[in-house]
Amino acid sequence: MKYPPKHHLDDNKKHLIEVIKTYPLATIISIYKNQPLITHLPLIFENNKLIGHIDIYNPQANFLNNNNEVTLIFSGPQCYISPSVYSTTQLPTWNYIKVHLKGNVKAIESKASLKQSLISMTEFLEQPEHRYVLEPDNPRLDRNLDYIKMFEITISDWEGKFKLSQDKKPKDTEAARSELIKSNQESIKQFLDKVFS
Amino acid sequence: MKYPPKHHLDDNKKHLIEVIKTYPLATIISIYKNQPLITHLPLIFENNKLIGHIDIYNPQANFLNNNNEVTLIFSGPQCYISPSVYSTTQLPTWNYIKVHLKGNVKAIESKASLKQSLISMTEFLEQPEHRYVLEPDNPRLDRNLDYIKMFEITISDWEGKFKLSQDKKPKDTEAARSELIKSNQESIKQFLDKVFS
Repeated sequence: MKYPPKHHLDDNKKHLIEVIKTYPLATIISIYKNQPLITHLPLIFENNKLIGHIDIYNPQANFLNNNNEVTLIFSGPQCYISPSVYSTTQLPTWNYIKVHLKGNVKAIESKASLKQSLISMTEFLEQPEHRYVLEPDNPRLDRNLDYIKMFEITISDWEGKFKLSQDKKPKDTEAARSELIKSNQESIKQFLDKVFS
Repeated sequence: MKYPPKHHLDDNKKHLIEVIKTYPLATIISIYKNQPLITHLPLIFENNKLIGHIDIYNPQANFLNNNNEVTLIFSGPQCYISPSVYSTTQLPTWNYIKVHLKGNVKAIESKASLKQSLISMTEFLEQPEHRYVLEPDNPRLDRNLDYIKMFEITISDWEGKFKLSQDKKPKDTEAARSELIKSNQESIKQFLDKVFS
């Protein structure tokens, strides 16, 4: 028996890129002294590479250097699937979409490239409404450039983990999909009230 | 300058436990041959420990043994914060809630404990509506017990990363919070349509 089951792997690169573009917050993992060093940063997919910017005081910045290998996780929607949503008899499970990548880092030293990249990233993230434009003459932007390090990651390994009840009957796959949408729209306000009380 | 800034760390253990209980899907990271081995599994917080179950064919199962150390990430809501949501002038940022833990694993060999634990986990996850009950005499449950391994994790390190614009004016913190709620309710249906087209 092979693990994971084939129906839970997605080798359609277009789907994986769609996850990265819709959920850009990446979990970046380096290994230091046999321990994972973990940082969460948005990365933008451009020309088959990932572009990011990091606070120079973040310990992870030391690992975002030329030829270092990093592991990345992009996280799509996820939720518990109650057997009650199916028309057939099933056991409880958890559905989720995750993309695991490995890649090699290249540090970009040019402050002009950093500035242009921050402007482009903002333009990408402000889609489709563009309520805000990061202007090249923004004084706050210029003041911050010395404290931000730019890097790009060339992806060497792609793995899509799409656990979405694809092995069930079409009706049940659809029910699981509706549950995923519903579940991600609930609970967040209630949760934030608890955490900020 | 210390990193991360203190206002982005939450040392209130109650808040961290609230994240774990609301967002039980954990990212489990072990280190093998200097590479991270990554698995996504729901873990239930009980008596100050985390309880989980894993497919015996998952390579991660070999690392969920006595005294092995694992790193865990629990992920709360996250979103891009456009400066346009603030009343003051700011740069673009990303808000998120993550809980990072380290812990030591103990394998639980008893099949009776596994069975009871699967029943309790289902009861926890079916809250508050309890649309489904996993019955002890469910034949599918019994057939699966030999292929599932139970483990518990004793937490040794807690770190809460609550990046929620807490350093801004109250009005702007509130605006960022509304954005987080709104953003997590959008885009998911559109995204799933793309991925399944």
